[in-house]
Amino acid sequence: MADVVVRTVPRPDAAAVTALGEQGVATVHEAMGRRGLMQSYLRPIYPGARIAGRAVTVLSQPGDNLMIHAAVEVCEPGDVLVVATVSPSTDGMFGELLATALRARGVVGLVIDAGARDVAELTEMGFPVWSRAISAQGTVKATPGSVNVPVVVAGELVNPGDVMVADDDGVVVVRREDAVAVAAAAQRRLDDEAEKRVLLQGGELSLDIYQLRAKLEALGVSYQ
Amino acid sequence: MADVVVRTVPRPDAAAVTALGEQGVATVHEAMGRRGLMQSYLRPIYPGARIAGRAVTVLSQPGDNLMIHAAVEVCEPGDVLVVATVSPSTDGMFGELLATALRARGVVGLVIDAGARDVAELTEMGFPVWSRAISAQGTVKATPGSVNVPVVVAGELVNPGDVMVADDDGVVVVRREDAVAVAAAAQRRLDDEAEKRVLLQGGELSLDIYQLRAKLEALGVSYQ
Amino acid sequence: MADVVVRTVPRPDAAAVTALGEQGVATVHEAMGRRGLMQSYLRPIYPGARIAGRAVTVLSQPGDNLMIHAAVEVCEPGDVLVVATVSPSTDGMFGELLATALRARGVVGLVIDAGARDVAELTEMGFPVWSRAISAQGTVKATPGSVNVPVVVAGELVNPGDVMVADDDGVVVVRREDAVAVAAAAQRRLDDEAEKRVLLQGGELSLDIYQLRAKLEALGVSYQ
Amino acid sequence: MADVVVRTVPRPDAAAVTALGEQGVATVHEAMGRRGLMQSYLRPIYPGARIAGRAVTVLSQPGDNLMIHAAVEVCEPGDVLVVATVSPSTDGMFGELLATALRARGVVGLVIDAGARDVAELTEMGFPVWSRAISAQGTVKATPGSVNVPVVVAGELVNPGDVMVADDDGVVVVRREDAVAVAAAAQRRLDDEAEKRVLLQGGELSLDIYQLRAKLEALGVSYQ
Amino acid sequence: MADVVVRTVPRPDAAAVTALGEQGVATVHEAMGRRGLMQSYLRPIYPGARIAGRAVTVLSQPGDNLMIHAAVEVCEPGDVLVVATVSPSTDGMFGELLATALRARGVVGLVIDAGARDVAELTEMGFPVWSRAISAQGTVKATPGSVNVPVVVAGELVNPGDVMVADDDGVVVVRREDAVAVAAAAQRRLDDEAEKRVLLQGGELSLDIYQLRAKLEALGVSYQ
Amino acid sequence: MADVVVRTVPRPDAAAVTALGEQGVATVHEAMGRRGLMQSYLRPIYPGARIAGRAVTVLSQPGDNLMIHAAVEVCEPGDVLVVATVSPSTDGMFGELLATALRARGVVGLVIDAGARDVAELTEMGFPVWSRAISAQGTVKATPGSVNVPVVVAGELVNPGDVMVADDDGVVVVRREDAVAVAAAAQRRLDDEAEKRVLLQGGELSLDIYQLRAKLEALGVSYQ
Repeated sequence: MADVVVRTVPRPDAAAVTALGEQGVATVHEAMGRRGLMQSYLRPIYPGARIAGRAVTVLSQPGDNLMIHAAVEVCEPGDVLVVATVSPSTDGMFGELLATALRARGVVGLVIDAGARDVAELTEMGFPVWSRAISAQGTVKATPGSVNVPVVVAGELVNPGDVMVADDDGVVVVRREDAVAVAAAAQRRLDDEAEKRVLLQGGELSLDIYQLRAKLEALGVSYQ
Repeated sequence: MADVVVRTVPRPDAAAVTALGEQGVATVHEAMGRRGLMQSYLRPIYPGARIAGRAVTVLSQPGDNLMIHAAVEVCEPGDVLVVATVSPSTDGMFGELLATALRARGVVGLVIDAGARDVAELTEMGFPVWSRAISAQGTVKATPGSVNVPVVVAGELVNPGDVMVADDDGVVVVRREDAVAVAAAAQRRLDDEAEKRVLLQGGELSLDIYQLRAKLEALGVSYQ
Repeated sequence: MADVVVRTVPRPDAAAVTALGEQGVATVHEAMGRRGLMQSYLRPIYPGARIAGRAVTVLSQPGDNLMIHAAVEVCEPGDVLVVATVSPSTDGMFGELLATALRARGVVGLVIDAGARDVAELTEMGFPVWSRAISAQGTVKATPGSVNVPVVVAGELVNPGDVMVADDDGVVVVRREDAVAVAAAAQRRLDDEAEKRVLLQGGELSLDIYQLRAKLEALGVSYQ
Repeated sequence: MADVVVRTVPRPDAAAVTALGEQGVATVHEAMGRRGLMQSYLRPIYPGARIAGRAVTVLSQPGDNLMIHAAVEVCEPGDVLVVATVSPSTDGMFGELLATALRARGVVGLVIDAGARDVAELTEMGFPVWSRAISAQGTVKATPGSVNVPVVVAGELVNPGDVMVADDDGVVVVRREDAVAVAAAAQRRLDDEAEKRVLLQGGELSLDIYQLRAKLEALGVSYQ
Repeated sequence: MADVVVRTVPRPDAAAVTALGEQGVATVHEAMGRRGLMQSYLRPIYPGARIAGRAVTVLSQPGDNLMIHAAVEVCEPGDVLVVATVSPSTDGMFGELLATALRARGVVGLVIDAGARDVAELTEMGFPVWSRAISAQGTVKATPGSVNVPVVVAGELVNPGDVMVADDDGVVVVRREDAVAVAAAAQRRLDDEAEKRVLLQGGELSLDIYQLRAKLEALGVSYQ
Repeated sequence: MADVVVRTVPRPDAAAVTALGEQGVATVHEAMGRRGLMQSYLRPIYPGARIAGRAVTVLSQPGDNLMIHAAVEVCEPGDVLVVATVSPSTDGMFGELLATALRARGVVGLVIDAGARDVAELTEMGFPVWSRAISAQGTVKATPGSVNVPVVVAGELVNPGDVMVADDDGVVVVRREDAVAVAAAAQRRLDDEAEKRVLLQGGELSLDIYQLRAKLEALGVSYQ
C-alpha cells in the first residue's frame, strides 16, 4: 500500500493498438461483449480526436498534480497518460505546460478522471484530452501518490500496459493480453456492419436483417 | 398495458410543421405560453442543426434497442423518431447503422432520452440527434416495448403525431391539433421582435419599450 | 434588504482589465493564489471567446428577467453583465434581444448562473455568454430584485466594479482593488512559464525544473 | 393553453384506492407491467408513511405557490395533491401552513416535483410529503398556472383523478380507469409472493422456483 | 491574498442569536426577504437538530483539514464552525475527534461545504453537522488556508461573526448587523402565522385569508 | 470475456473480518493509507447498520437481476453480496424476496451500485443494504452476466473474496490478502485515537497534539 513509481510497463501488441485506434470506441467496446467502456461523463475537450495507446497510469490526491510530473519521465512514444484521483475532483490538474512535456516524450493523449485547463491552447496544439470537467482550478504539488499501479477511472479498471482507445464517443480500455483478439473481433464486426450498411441504405429493414420479427412475436408485442 | 406497435400515426399540418421548424424552439415555446419545452439536459450532438417533424414514438427498456428497430418500419418521410425508456439510462441505444436505416425512410432526426453513439459518423452524415448523453455503451435486443404510444421524454408528454421542433436551444413538442395556431402565434411574435430589435439596435431601452418602469416602482424597487 | 438599482459602479484600472483579459482565466486564477474561480459548471455557449470587463451585477428571482432589463440602462462600454438568482435555476433568462440591447450599450459579454437561449443567434452575432445551462425556457417579468449589489455566482462573491475574466477555461473574478497587482503577478507568471515551456519542449523534465525529486523522496515515494 | 382551475375531478373506485395503498408502490408498479413509477429523486421527507388517493394536480411557475393556494379549495377528503412546475426547481413551495389547510380538507398527502420545508413540523403533524428536495427557499404568489390539468411529475404523466400511491419506495401513478384491474393484479402478485416467501425461507433457491437454470444455460452462462 | 488566521471575531447580539435559533431557518429566511438561504444540498447528518450561533469561518484546500485544526483555538462557547473549500469536494474532512475538540470549546455545531464522517459517533454524542455529503474519505494536513476570512458556502457569503441558523430545513446566514432586526421581523411573522393557522384549522381558505381571488382573476386564471 | 458463474471464492481470515467490522469504515480506510473507499453516493437504506464479510460479486446488465438469482446459490454464511452493472442504473434490482433468499444462506448484507426497493420491509427484517438509489423500478430476467468475477463498484475494484466493510459512513473494500495487516493497523489507529480523545476532552488543542503550529508557520500562514 506504499506509494511507488513503477518504471517499466508491459507493451501491448503494436499492430493491435493501431487497429483498435482505427476501429474506434463503439466498435471495440462491442467486440469485447460490451465491456470496458468508461462512464459517459468523460468527454473530449475538443471534437474530432481519435487515439489509441499504451496506458501509463497515475494515482493522485485530488487537487495535487505532483505525480503527473513524476509520470512524464516513464512515458514513451505512443503512450496515453491515464490519471485517477483517490476521491472525486474536478480540479484542473492538467494544462498546456504538462502537455508540452508529454508531447516531448511522444505521448499521444490524456485520459483524466478530473479536470483539465488551457483548453484553447491544448486545442491549438492538437493535444487531445478526455476529462470529467474543464476547470482552471489550480493544484498543489504537496502529497504523494503512485505511477503505474492499477487504477479505476470513470468506473473501469486500468492496468499499466492496457490499451486505451478514445474518440468522440468516449473512452474504452482493452486488457493488454486481449488486444490482438479484440482487434480481430472488432474487424469482423466492422466487416459485418459494412454489409448491413449497404442493405440498410437500399431500404431493407433491420427487423428482417437481424430476424427480429419472430422475437417480437415471442415477446408478446402485437401490431395494430 | 400490453406491448404494441401502432402502425398509423395522425399527420400534423405540413405547412405548420415547416413554419415551426423555421421559427425555432425558443419562439415556439414562448408562443405556446411557455409550455412544451423538454428539460435542458437534452443536447444536440453537434451544433447548427434545426429540424421539425411528426413524432413517431418508442418506449424501450433501458439498454435495449429492440423497439427502435421495430419503429423504423412505421416511419415516413419528414418524421422525427422520439425514444423514451421506462427508467433512466444513458446507454448508447442509437448509432450510425440505425441512422442509415432511418435516413432510408426519410426520417429527419432523433430525440432520445438516453445516449447516442457514433457521434463522428452521425456528424459526417448530417443526421441530427438530441440526447441526454453521448455514450458508446452497447445495448441488447432482449425485452419488449411499444411503438407509437404516448411517452414522457425529458419531462414532457409526446403523443404520436405531435410536432417535434429541435435546434441548438433544445427540443419543444407541439400538440398536433395546436400546430397551426402555434405557428401563427409564433409568427406574430417574430414580427413583434423584429420591430423591437430595430429599436434596441438604435439604443432604446427595453425598460421603455416594454413599459417596465412603472412595474419596478410598483414592486418597490428604488434607485440610488 | 430592500430591492434597489444602484446606478454608479466603481471603475477598475483600464490597463489592468485589458491585461487580465489577455492573460486568461487559468493564469489570473493562479496569480491570485488559486482564488476567485467560479465553479466549472459555468461554460461558454460557443468556443473561442475571451473577455474581461467591469462587473455590473443583477440579483433576480429564478425564471424572471425583469431585473436584467433594469440593468441594461446602467451598463457602460466594456462592462460584463453578471446575473445571479436567489435560488438555483436553469431557465433561459437571456437571449438575442437582450444581447442586442447590451451590445448597443457596449457590453462585452454575459456571465449568468442560470440558462441562456438563442444560442445560434448569439453565436452568429458573436456575443459571448457563460451560463450553467442552455435552455429555451421562457421567463416572466413579475418579481423585484436588485442591480449592482454584491452577488454570489457559481460559488464566488462578485462586487459591482470587480473585474470579470472569462474564456474557454471558465470564469474568474478579480477584486477591483487587486486588479493592478494581479495583472502584474499574472505577467510574471506568464514570463516564467515561457522560460519553462522552452525547457520542456527541449525534453527537460518538470521533475528537474521544479526540483521535485527531493520532495518525492521526502514524501516516501519509492521507485521500482 | 389558457390558465384554468378545473373544479370537478373524476373519482376512482374507492375500494381499489384502499387496496392499492395497502399493496404498496413496488407491487403496484410491477402489477402494471413495470409502468407508472416516478423517478427515484422523489423521496419522502420522513420514513414510514404509506398513502393512496385521488390526484388533484397543480401546474405552477417555479418559485411561485399561488396555484397551490388555489387548489386547496377543490380538494376533497382522501385526495393527494400533486404539484408540477413548468421548469425544474427545488424551491420550498410547500410548508406547514399549507399542510394545515390541506388537512382541514381531508387531503392525505402531497407529491411535489420541487422542494418542501417545515420538515420538523410536517413530521410532527404526520402529514406525508414526497419531494425532490428539502429547501426553505421561500416563494412568491405572482404568476398564474393551472389546477387539475394533466401534468408530468418526475417523468410520469398524471391526470386529475388518477390514483397516487406513495411509500418509502417512492411514488407510482395508476390511471383511474385501470385502478380496479391493477389492484386485482397486485393482489394476485402478493399471493404468489407469499407462497414463494415460504419456499425461500425454507432454503429453496429462486433459480429453481423461477426455473431459471435453463435460461442461464440458453444465454451461454457457464459454471466453474 | 495571503493565508491568515484571524483571532478576533465580532460578536452578534446574544438575545438575537437565541431568538433566531428558536424561530428556525424557514421563518428567518422569509423575514430577510427570502435571502441568505444556503443551497439545499447541505443536509443534517441526523434529524431533529436546531442550532444558532456566531460563525467562525475556515477556508481550506479540498481534502485537507489542517485549517480546521487551526480554527479550533479561536472558537468560543456558542460558536458554529463554518468550513468552505477552494474547489468542490465531498471528502470527509470532519469526524468525531474534531467534534470532541470543538465541544471542549463550547462550539454548538458545524456547517461544512464538503463531507463529514463518523456519523454514528456524532449522532451518539449529539454534535450536529450540516454537510454536502457523508464520506469517510480521509484527508491530509499539508496545505495552507485561512481562518475567519469571508467565505462562500453553498452559494451564500458568510462573514466571521455572522449568525448561522440551521435545522431540518437547511442552513441560513444572517448578517451580524441585521441580527436584531431580523429576529424582530421573524417574530412578527410567527405571530401572524399563528393567527392564520387557527383560521386554516377552522377550514377557512388561504385564497380568502390572503385575498388571492382578485389576483387570480387579474392574472387571467378562469374557473371551470 | 464469456459470462460465467464461479462457484468457489477464496476465504479471508475470519478474525480479521470480525475485527474490521468492529473498527468501521473510516478507521479501516485510513489504516489502508486512505484507499479502498467507495464513492459517497452509496448510502445505507436505514441508519445504524454495521457489517463486514466476504465479497461474492455479481456483474449484471442494468435493469436485469437474473444474475443476482444465480449468485444466491454460491453464497455462504457471513458473505456480503456485491452487485455491479455494466452501465449506470438506479433500477430497483433488489427487494425483500431476494433478501429472504440471502438470509436463508446466512448472507449479512448487500452492496449494490444500483437501486433497492421494499425499504420498509428490509428495515423491518433488519437486512442492511447500501445502494446508490431507492427505487421501486422493476427489472427483467433476460440477459446474461457473471458471478464472482472482479467488478468495479462505486469507483473501487472488488475481487471475489475481498472483505467488504460497511456502516453509516459508507463502504470500504479490503483486499483479502491485506485483511490481517489492515485490521492490525486499524487497531493501532484506534488505540492512538483513544489517547488523543482523552487529551481533546481535557481541552488540549490538536494543533499541539499533532504539532501543527510549526507546519502552519512553514506554510506561511500568519496570525492576526
